[in-house]
Amino acid sequence: MRDAYHEDLEALTTTLVDMTRLVGGAVSRATQAVLDADLSLAEAVIDGDDAIDAAYNDIEKRAYDLLARQQPVAADLRLIVASLRMMVDLERAGDYARHIAELARRRYPASAIPADLRPTVLEMGQVTARIVEKCGRIVAGIDRGDLVDKVEQLEREDDVIDNLHRELFTVLLSDDWDGGIETAVDVILCGRYYERLADHVVGVARRVVYLVTGERHETPLA
Amino acid sequence: MRDAYHEDLEALTTTLVDMTRLVGGAVSRATQAVLDADLSLAEAVIDGDDAIDAAYNDIEKRAYDLLARQQPVAADLRLIVASLRMMVDLERAGDYARHIAELARRRYPASAIPADLRPTVLEMGQVTARIVEKCGRIVAGIDRGDLVDKVEQLEREDDVIDNLHRELFTVLLSDDWDGGIETAVDVILCGRYYERLADHVVGVARRVVYLVTGERHETPLA
Repeated sequence: MRDAYHEDLEALTTTLVDMTRLVGGAVSRATQAVLDADLSLAEAVIDGDDAIDAAYNDIEKRAYDLLARQQPVAADLRLIVASLRMMVDLERAGDYARHIAELARRRYPASAIPADLRPTVLEMGQVTARIVEKCGRIVAGIDRGDLVDKVEQLEREDDVIDNLHRELFTVLLSDDWDGGIETAVDVILCGRYYERLADHVVGVARRVVYLVTGERHETPLA
Repeated sequence: MRDAYHEDLEALTTTLVDMTRLVGGAVSRATQAVLDADLSLAEAVIDGDDAIDAAYNDIEKRAYDLLARQQPVAADLRLIVASLRMMVDLERAGDYARHIAELARRRYPASAIPADLRPTVLEMGQVTARIVEKCGRIVAGIDRGDLVDKVEQLEREDDVIDNLHRELFTVLLSDDWDGGIETAVDVILCGRYYERLADHVVGVARRVVYLVTGERHETPLA
């Protein structure tokens, strides 16, 4: 009985890590889709969101069964409650990757991103994919000693995203930018999707700190 | 002992209802602030977000203590888990009201919303405030017989928001619109904040259905 219990607990973590992999893959492909106006890649991301939702449902069911049947306490209870929170953030992160892909699809065969902003969007996509990848490692190895350092690294990567996001605004609002309203709207939405996505994923990593230290934070995370 | 337990359970609902009131007030004031370029109103919304965060922390602490100490099962367990989900959506909804207020503050003393789009944004604000108000009543009276009807009404109101949101794009992307990129960006962000806010709040109402029927949905809510 206890063995099945621990297997279920471990499966929570494994499935969360799976979700980070799915989200990371979706981010990379959505970035390529939006930059290269690649319709089939965009559709792969959009269709792939179902697998993220399935992982979400799997965690919710497992967590709920554990709570109902095993009456876990202390660290186990914290893990279950934290998993319920983390899965929400990862599911939302997946939604944002899907939104980026939908942007690519909507503007196909044109690219949603004008040439002068491609490097900025490419970098946003790459840094975001890196954040997701690192978050996955943090979730997978929650017992590591340098956890707080790693989460702080992640927050610095998130600052990079915020700066790139601001850069988009600076370019769009400069006097010599003449790309038109529709493109401006697409770029702003695209930038916001990356910014929100990264924010949710960093929130997941912060939850791991809460899980390991047991400290409840004074302000809501993520 | 059982009495304190039931008081704690009831307090979860009461605090969630309080959160809807705080969010509803924030939406109405943020709408006025962004339309009238009212700086003090904008700052009141921004400062008021702390009270929403405090309610969130209160629910989290109470839910966690209930799970750890009382080992609740069945309907009580569902209420606690659902409360943890609903508080996240309401806290995010509060963040979006704050974002609208921040938009008003950033453009002060100018108004972020041009004259021709004021009616659309005003209606988005009013419908969103109504959705929040109705959601509060749904959360408060979760035992009512016409619950599913009421949630469906809410979803129709949410469709109105989606249509108004699309209307903003139609106006901005029309050939004769000449309000400039900066205004377009503000309008797009503002519209998106209302749309996301309403979405989170409708998600809360849907969670009440889950809570009452006990049915786990196949796809993630909200």
